[in-house]
Amino acid sequence: MKIGRFRQKEDKNGIFYGSLSPDGSFVNVMTHFDFEDLNYTGRQYFLSELDFLSPCETTKIVAVGVNYKDHAEEMNKKLPEVPLLFIKPSSSVIAHLERIVLPKSSVRVNYESEFAIVMAKKAKNVKISEAPDYILGYTCLNDVTARDLQTKDVQFTRAKGFDTFAPVGPFIETEIKDPLNLAVKGYLNGELRQSSNTSNLIFGPYELVEFISGIMTLFPGDIISTGTPSGVGSLKSGDVFEIEIDNIGRLKNFVE
Amino acid sequence: MKIGRFRQKEDKNGIFYGSLSPDGSFVNVMTHFDFEDLNYTGRQYFLSELDFLSPCETTKIVAVGVNYKDHAEEMNKKLPEVPLLFIKPSSSVIAHLERIVLPKSSVRVNYESEFAIVMAKKAKNVKISEAPDYILGYTCLNDVTARDLQTKDVQFTRAKGFDTFAPVGPFIETEIKDPLNLAVKGYLNGELRQSSNTSNLIFGPYELVEFISGIMTLFPGDIISTGTPSGVGSLKSGDVFEIEIDNIGRLKNFVE
Repeated sequence: MKIGRFRQKEDKNGIFYGSLSPDGSFVNVMTHFDFEDLNYTGRQYFLSELDFLSPCETTKIVAVGVNYKDHAEEMNKKLPEVPLLFIKPSSSVIAHLERIVLPKSSVRVNYESEFAIVMAKKAKNVKISEAPDYILGYTCLNDVTARDLQTKDVQFTRAKGFDTFAPVGPFIETEIKDPLNLAVKGYLNGELRQSSNTSNLIFGPYELVEFISGIMTLFPGDIISTGTPSGVGSLKSGDVFEIEIDNIGRLKNFVE
Repeated sequence: MKIGRFRQKEDKNGIFYGSLSPDGSFVNVMTHFDFEDLNYTGRQYFLSELDFLSPCETTKIVAVGVNYKDHAEEMNKKLPEVPLLFIKPSSSVIAHLERIVLPKSSVRVNYESEFAIVMAKKAKNVKISEAPDYILGYTCLNDVTARDLQTKDVQFTRAKGFDTFAPVGPFIETEIKDPLNLAVKGYLNGELRQSSNTSNLIFGPYELVEFISGIMTLFPGDIISTGTPSGVGSLKSGDVFEIEIDNIGRLKNFVE
């Protein structure tokens, strides 16, 4: 099932969660974000009547650096022994079809196509074997990065924390049986620039849920972004960047 | 005025904001957290009837590394040209009198006494001259850090992101006229271990609000922690750590 968060184009105040119909043409409105107790209001909208919002409300994005074997080689980094964590603030999140704003303080902003986990419930000290129960589903995330500031600061927070630097969506896919065999692709202005598979992840989703929930409590809607494969490159004003992941869909954003 | 957030000892569900009476004995209950439109319910409680909660609800803590001249010397670091930012997640926050839990994965957990800013309203691209309008007040924050993991990871996120690693409080003081002339002290089991003054800050509160709000939107209740002075040291089970800042009060926490 594909879950999203939406707003009626005609009614800027009416925000709701909904699930996409099998043919992708309309959305069934949910009563609230509680996926242990799923309920529908009975209302339906055509997808064309709706604006996309980010598909979950998140208190934090915990992201992982250097987590694809191919990207580690590209960056000349040795494989990490434990996941390398950083946080993107909730203020950096934008939705499908929204605009990435290039900050004046950077001359080199990169796209990073990522496969991301969305949490279903509060998670603390979760074991690998229990991790699937805590995962609502998976989505696409663009870990936009001011590469020049990342190099300068060493800490990733400024470089990856600008407003609009975390496009997420368009949907959360809740029925992925094997999260370790999905093609992840990134397209710059329609041209394929990143192409890998989650089978190349150094730390998979269940290991990450165990490792991160052993440090900090994760809440429903929190996101773990699993890192980017090789092929990262720069964005300039007017560009369009798309991330496509098997079964999830295609996240498209414009660069202002 | 000193603002806090509390829960009645007898009623675990009743959470409210309140202001402390001038003699410190009782709390006037506020209707909600909106300090541009302050309203009271008329109810009062003795402070002794209440448990402390962290004095604000925060979406993120943006913290600053190496921001005291004396601490920079202690750590053999050169003075930064721009503030060095990192994020502590909201999940790390605990209140006055709560317990810091030492994680098994670290053998060297340090206290760091810090002077912290609490935001009053949504802030984006705020100029230094306007910054005071966006600040609700100031509080104490212990930037607890697993020093061994900080050294190992380089990124600060894990080392500073454990649950309970951000004690905050006890109050937000809203009437500090000169935030650049306040004594900041840290006491380990009653012994003075850190002693400096906010006059030693490399980047002051108004500069930090300008710099950070130029990167990421800050929300009401968000915290900027300004860094720690020299004298950091280790915590062990059974310790009591207190941070005292002029006019604000004394934040006390136990180590489990």
